[in-house]
Amino acid sequence: MDYAQFSQNELIKMLDNERKAFKQVQKRGISVDMTRGRPESAQLAVSMPMLENAGTYNYVEDGVDARNYGQLLGIKSARELYANLMGCKEDEVIVADGSSLDLMYTVVQFAMQFGVLGSTPWNKLKKVKFICLTPGYDRHFSICEHFGIEMIAVRMRADGPDMNLIESIVRDDDSVKGIWCVPKYSNPSGITYSDKVVERLATMKTAADDFRIFWDNAYLAHDLYDDGDRLKNIFDVARKAGTLDRVYAFSSTSKITFAGSGLACFASSQSNVEAIAHELFFKTIGPNKINQVMHVNFLKNLSHIKEIMRKHAEILRPKFKLFDEKMTQEFEGDNYVNWSKPRGGYFISLDVKTCAKRVVELSAEAGVKFTPAGSSFPYHIDDLDENIRIAPSVPTLDEMDYAVDVLISAIKQARMELVLKKIYHFDARA
Amino acid sequence: MDYAQFSQNELIKMLDNERKAFKQVQKRGISVDMTRGRPESAQLAVSMPMLENAGTYNYVEDGVDARNYGQLLGIKSARELYANLMGCKEDEVIVADGSSLDLMYTVVQFAMQFGVLGSTPWNKLKKVKFICLTPGYDRHFSICEHFGIEMIAVRMRADGPDMNLIESIVRDDDSVKGIWCVPKYSNPSGITYSDKVVERLATMKTAADDFRIFWDNAYLAHDLYDDGDRLKNIFDVARKAGTLDRVYAFSSTSKITFAGSGLACFASSQSNVEAIAHELFFKTIGPNKINQVMHVNFLKNLSHIKEIMRKHAEILRPKFKLFDEKMTQEFEGDNYVNWSKPRGGYFISLDVKTCAKRVVELSAEAGVKFTPAGSSFPYHIDDLDENIRIAPSVPTLDEMDYAVDVLISAIKQARMELVLKKIYHFDARA
Repeated sequence: MDYAQFSQNELIKMLDNERKAFKQVQKRGISVDMTRGRPESAQLAVSMPMLENAGTYNYVEDGVDARNYGQLLGIKSARELYANLMGCKEDEVIVADGSSLDLMYTVVQFAMQFGVLGSTPWNKLKKVKFICLTPGYDRHFSICEHFGIEMIAVRMRADGPDMNLIESIVRDDDSVKGIWCVPKYSNPSGITYSDKVVERLATMKTAADDFRIFWDNAYLAHDLYDDGDRLKNIFDVARKAGTLDRVYAFSSTSKITFAGSGLACFASSQSNVEAIAHELFFKTIGPNKINQVMHVNFLKNLSHIKEIMRKHAEILRPKFKLFDEKMTQEFEGDNYVNWSKPRGGYFISLDVKTCAKRVVELSAEAGVKFTPAGSSFPYHIDDLDENIRIAPSVPTLDEMDYAVDVLISAIKQARMELVLKKIYHFDARA
Repeated sequence: MDYAQFSQNELIKMLDNERKAFKQVQKRGISVDMTRGRPESAQLAVSMPMLENAGTYNYVEDGVDARNYGQLLGIKSARELYANLMGCKEDEVIVADGSSLDLMYTVVQFAMQFGVLGSTPWNKLKKVKFICLTPGYDRHFSICEHFGIEMIAVRMRADGPDMNLIESIVRDDDSVKGIWCVPKYSNPSGITYSDKVVERLATMKTAADDFRIFWDNAYLAHDLYDDGDRLKNIFDVARKAGTLDRVYAFSSTSKITFAGSGLACFASSQSNVEAIAHELFFKTIGPNKINQVMHVNFLKNLSHIKEIMRKHAEILRPKFKLFDEKMTQEFEGDNYVNWSKPRGGYFISLDVKTCAKRVVELSAEAGVKFTPAGSSFPYHIDDLDENIRIAPSVPTLDEMDYAVDVLISAIKQARMELVLKKIYHFDARA
């Protein structure tokens, strides 16, 4: 709705009514923390059989005892399973402990301190830059900021990153060493990259030999519907183009089994895997292989993982749907309010022009916590102040119903306040 | 035995006989890999109930669901248990995934890249040096070598490191930033530091404010006998002296439950824990907390851990004893062959003057692999070529019997070769 069509007095009255309605809504007394994409309890129950059967698994595999030291790159069966999931070969995979964020941080740290396949350590360069797609995953950006890596913000488009812009950036500037991508069901936009985008990323000319695509395939199996998005296999494209060294792929089972207690994976060319293994040798004797045996026995194979993911989808889908239905009812056709309709992943991306901060603030007053506005942008700067990341996995359906009521009212109030201020120079918050 | 008392011809004959006897021994056709301190299978069986009962544990503790994200520093009950083990407070403890080596590497990396409590990042200093006690743990030295940290070798004495020398080194040189210690049942010497040594380490004057004692308390509960060595609590001493920031303590349950799949721990002052937590935030959402719940439920408390360790000791002790008995029978009173008689831990340290490399080489010919000679020294340089690390945990009792027979013969051959060469300038290996 375009509130500019109303007079100042009309708007003040409307805002007043909305505030009263907001107070009524708050009486439900619910509080919801939707700041992170945490699975809800019902989802965690899906994987309890893995723990219940932990005593029955065979922990010795091909003469290797998973309960003892060794197997720096993970046990064979876990590497095989992950190779199938990632669409690459077994010896292109490292299976580690639970945190894929840790793996990403670690390979960045290796590059900073020791270089990449013989390149100058990034610590010794005057400047190192990464391309950061916006909106994107805040934890990727935090790693850059912490290591002093300059972030170049590039907007996402409907089919993935803006490839014309990216190609022009990486072609000429050899200080650009990386790009963060969540290629399937992007965090938070929900976008899956088109085939063309995957092809261009894998084959584009880069000034830096040690340029790496940080391919965080966090939601590779996380479809909400049976006909999930299909992501082109970057390993196939890069292998054919001779650019496999460029791909640093990651994933984890955090949202397949248990969040933080699953298996994380790094996949890349064999040369990169060998180089990373050389570095890992100084760091650890090996990962938690008991957890790997437990996961391999529970997950079994791709079709069984699909079955498990169907159970997650049954829990998640109604909440995504509820959000979409209520928002559609209120804001359909409204130019000032837009939201994504992802077919998988963990987030909905909401755009509310130039009042995201205020919407998050108002929602918090009613006990609904969203990720701070701006979080999905490098240096936390959303210059349009429009983006809010919604994590539908956290609340129950009832809590979600409340959260969206709160959100809708917060958006209406924030926009009325904005019009009052901008057009009538009236500060309704005073 | 002093082989110099024999003539050249006598020695050639004796060596020839020994070689024949060695061939006879080899006929048992056993091969044993004693390169690392791995627990044997019977020890791994001790902790199987932890896995068998994994389905029965309560994964929600004080409203925190261990199956979900969070708890960067570990779950409360695991931090409590480790605080008891390490002799410090709960908020002085971080409980992480399985590898304490990973924790040690990580805090060194943090110091290199970001500094320590506000100090200049070590990467930016001209020189960084660590004191490395010899013989010591090769993986400690590898971390230094990899990061370009210069190692100052200091010999161990009967009661721990040579404190006069260490005090003089750290007092004047502010580029000396650390010392690696395995204070109880040292790797490989088996020595437990005296109270005086612990006190002097904790209270000595250091030129560098960011000097740290890397207190790798790997064998804190690993007694072979009921009356185990008692290590003075460095937290008590340092707390009293106001030097708690200097202590970076580590441990893991790798040799209590499962090797590589246990819980690792970092313990230090609260300021250090907070600073490390700030760094960890960029690296991970949290550790594998399911494994923490499993461990807390299985290990329960200190007295139950003691019970578990008694089971390990029952398996380990006969092998340590067998080694000592056979070696005593052969080499008692021999000035050229000395070995430690540890009351806990995982290693026996063997000194065979100026022929360690040859002894390891000869043993390998009979299928008995020891850690390469020199491994327990910085840059792999044992200038006396005397030290061999023995890992009695790996072989069965029968294999141990064979391994010591091989070792004894190898020592005799190597020493005869040596005397022939040194005194008679006769190369018996030609």
